[in-house]
Amino acid sequence: MSDRYQKGWEKLTEIHGERGRGQQVLESLKEIAPDLPKYIIEFGYGDVYSRPGLDAKTRQLSTVAALTALGTAPNELKVHIHGALNVGCSRDEVVEVILQMALYAGFPATLNAMQVAQDAFGERVDADES
Amino acid sequence: MSDRYQKGWEKLTEIHGERGRGQQVLESLKEIAPDLPKYIIEFGYGDVYSRPGLDAKTRQLSTVAALTALGTAPNELKVHIHGALNVGCSRDEVVEVILQMALYAGFPATLNAMQVAQDAFGERVDADES
Amino acid sequence: MSDRYQKGWEKLTEIHGERGRGQQVLESLKEIAPDLPKYIIEFGYGDVYSRPGLDAKTRQLSTVAALTALGTAPNELKVHIHGALNVGCSRDEVVEVILQMALYAGFPATLNAMQVAQDAFGERVDADES
Amino acid sequence: MSDRYQKGWEKLTEIHGERGRGQQVLESLKEIAPDLPKYIIEFGYGDVYSRPGLDAKTRQLSTVAALTALGTAPNELKVHIHGALNVGCSRDEVVEVILQMALYAGFPATLNAMQVAQDAFGERVDADES
Amino acid sequence: MSDRYQKGWEKLTEIHGERGRGQQVLESLKEIAPDLPKYIIEFGYGDVYSRPGLDAKTRQLSTVAALTALGTAPNELKVHIHGALNVGCSRDEVVEVILQMALYAGFPATLNAMQVAQDAFGERVDADES
Amino acid sequence: MSDRYQKGWEKLTEIHGERGRGQQVLESLKEIAPDLPKYIIEFGYGDVYSRPGLDAKTRQLSTVAALTALGTAPNELKVHIHGALNVGCSRDEVVEVILQMALYAGFPATLNAMQVAQDAFGERVDADES
Repeated sequence: MSDRYQKGWEKLTEIHGERGRGQQVLESLKEIAPDLPKYIIEFGYGDVYSRPGLDAKTRQLSTVAALTALGTAPNELKVHIHGALNVGCSRDEVVEVILQMALYAGFPATLNAMQVAQDAFGERVDADES
Repeated sequence: MSDRYQKGWEKLTEIHGERGRGQQVLESLKEIAPDLPKYIIEFGYGDVYSRPGLDAKTRQLSTVAALTALGTAPNELKVHIHGALNVGCSRDEVVEVILQMALYAGFPATLNAMQVAQDAFGERVDADES
Repeated sequence: MSDRYQKGWEKLTEIHGERGRGQQVLESLKEIAPDLPKYIIEFGYGDVYSRPGLDAKTRQLSTVAALTALGTAPNELKVHIHGALNVGCSRDEVVEVILQMALYAGFPATLNAMQVAQDAFGERVDADES
Repeated sequence: MSDRYQKGWEKLTEIHGERGRGQQVLESLKEIAPDLPKYIIEFGYGDVYSRPGLDAKTRQLSTVAALTALGTAPNELKVHIHGALNVGCSRDEVVEVILQMALYAGFPATLNAMQVAQDAFGERVDADES
Repeated sequence: MSDRYQKGWEKLTEIHGERGRGQQVLESLKEIAPDLPKYIIEFGYGDVYSRPGLDAKTRQLSTVAALTALGTAPNELKVHIHGALNVGCSRDEVVEVILQMALYAGFPATLNAMQVAQDAFGERVDADES
Repeated sequence: MSDRYQKGWEKLTEIHGERGRGQQVLESLKEIAPDLPKYIIEFGYGDVYSRPGLDAKTRQLSTVAALTALGTAPNELKVHIHGALNVGCSRDEVVEVILQMALYAGFPATLNAMQVAQDAFGERVDADES
């Protein structure tokens, strides 16, 4: 296990929790493409998310912005909405970023992402209550 | 001139300066589509950017993230890189957001946006020196 | 309730009916982001769709064209296929626009949108029969 | 020369004129990919644009809508803005369609397309005056 | 039935099998848009896929690459993953192409496509076992 | 200099030559974002392109397919068209892949990419003659 993997795993856990959906996605890939979760952890979380120069909240909100605008990855968007809340963003901040994207990617992109946020928020209520 | 227009114009000026490139773009549209700059000012800046709940720096960086990921609007991206710097983001923060987008939109999107950032940073040096 | 909201609501109702799916989507957002349906009604329907200069049928077909080409918002596409039929477009016109998009966005975009049209047409038969 | 080619060429000429930019683009491809202009004429104009069921104006405006929303083909967009005007659309109708796309693809898409429309309109003034 | 249709049908069958999912999709369109499957067979398979100059495996992997990068057509992607395996690509080659797309379209595009590949591979195991 | 960097640099040189445009792009980023070329070399070329399981020609053609379909990175597309030719693809194979993309991303995507290919081919003739 490389240093980059170790560092990436810690950052991933910091953002998505010990048993978050992010890890489950990576887990499910271990058979078909074992190097893909490795690259995501090493490069994505070990190299990029571990960089100084941008606080964790802004990193998550930037990702929420981009995935809202792209509109092709609702599952990843949900993972990063949870991530945003995990690192201390408020629900309002998540909603504001998604809303702002109407200006840059149109209302359908915002409507779809808002639906994803609604699901993510609901999952946390469920988790809190269970 | 509606209240929303007035409020939007103030917000626009706060972000892009008195005679920024953003205003020039809007100015150039006045003949072909006079309501388009009006909508951008009223809805974009008066309604959305004037909302509380997200600080100006995070709003600009979210827009930089989205326009980097979309990759179809380098001119608007440059306007908002200037906007980000105007409201107090550091060059490093802009670079970090663009870099992070490699994870969500691929390296070409990041490479193109980094080139735009380089141009924007160069324009500010030129402006400072003139 | 602003004039723009009133005007937008009337236009929305004209296109999507009194209790269309469009309204249901907006309704569902009232808790998470109450200003989003407001903006869609005021800006989308009050400002833009209420403009003269383009007839209602062409507006709906242009939206069907764009959402087919983008391929990221099948739910919104369905809402606007219903909208197109509501304002007097024939099923053939909707099908023709979707078909034409194969030239500009490829066959998968057209295939996916045709599936959405099939669903929308089916819902109307069901509604007619119930 | 197949019937489809003949039919497509007539439709192409009807929309883009005898020596329009559309033909120049196709001409320029004859060496690198001689079948590409053939397919565009046969399939694009012979099969699709020659279909009944949608008038020429709506076909052009649908294409303008889609290319505005996609944002990746400003040259093709310009060709079809000229095409729209050639088949009888007014400048206002073109502007309205582009403006409406702000709702579905965001303001940058609309701003970029409006710039293309401005260029296209300018070319026609130049042509009229020469 | 034109020669192009005949040729296209043979190519389609060669890639997707006698009763593949590709044909089912085309079948389902016969009522709403009977010319769409015709065009896909004539133009897509008769004109384009029947061209010499690129082997069947590279054609399928190129399509897998593009649909992974676009991210808007998971059903079509699955059809072409099956197609790739049908014409002799290994599962590893499919996985490699999807993995490589992380560089050009980001990790979410690759994650989503890998999930589709996992489903496609699973369907073949099921088929083999039944 | 890490092993991954060394390995990546060798792969990069193998594909793009000693002083190709790819390296120039990376060179130009060294001031604004020194880690970006490092990541591209380490992760892109050291980790991904160095993987066994797919031959160099298919890797380049898959990238050409994806960048043609995305349509947002003509410069990167040109770099990889040169790369494809460098590793032994014929011009015909490059043209075929770009042509095939008309089916998945529409004609404008193919037209734009064909123009890029024409430029790339022209640069090689120029280089051969100088």
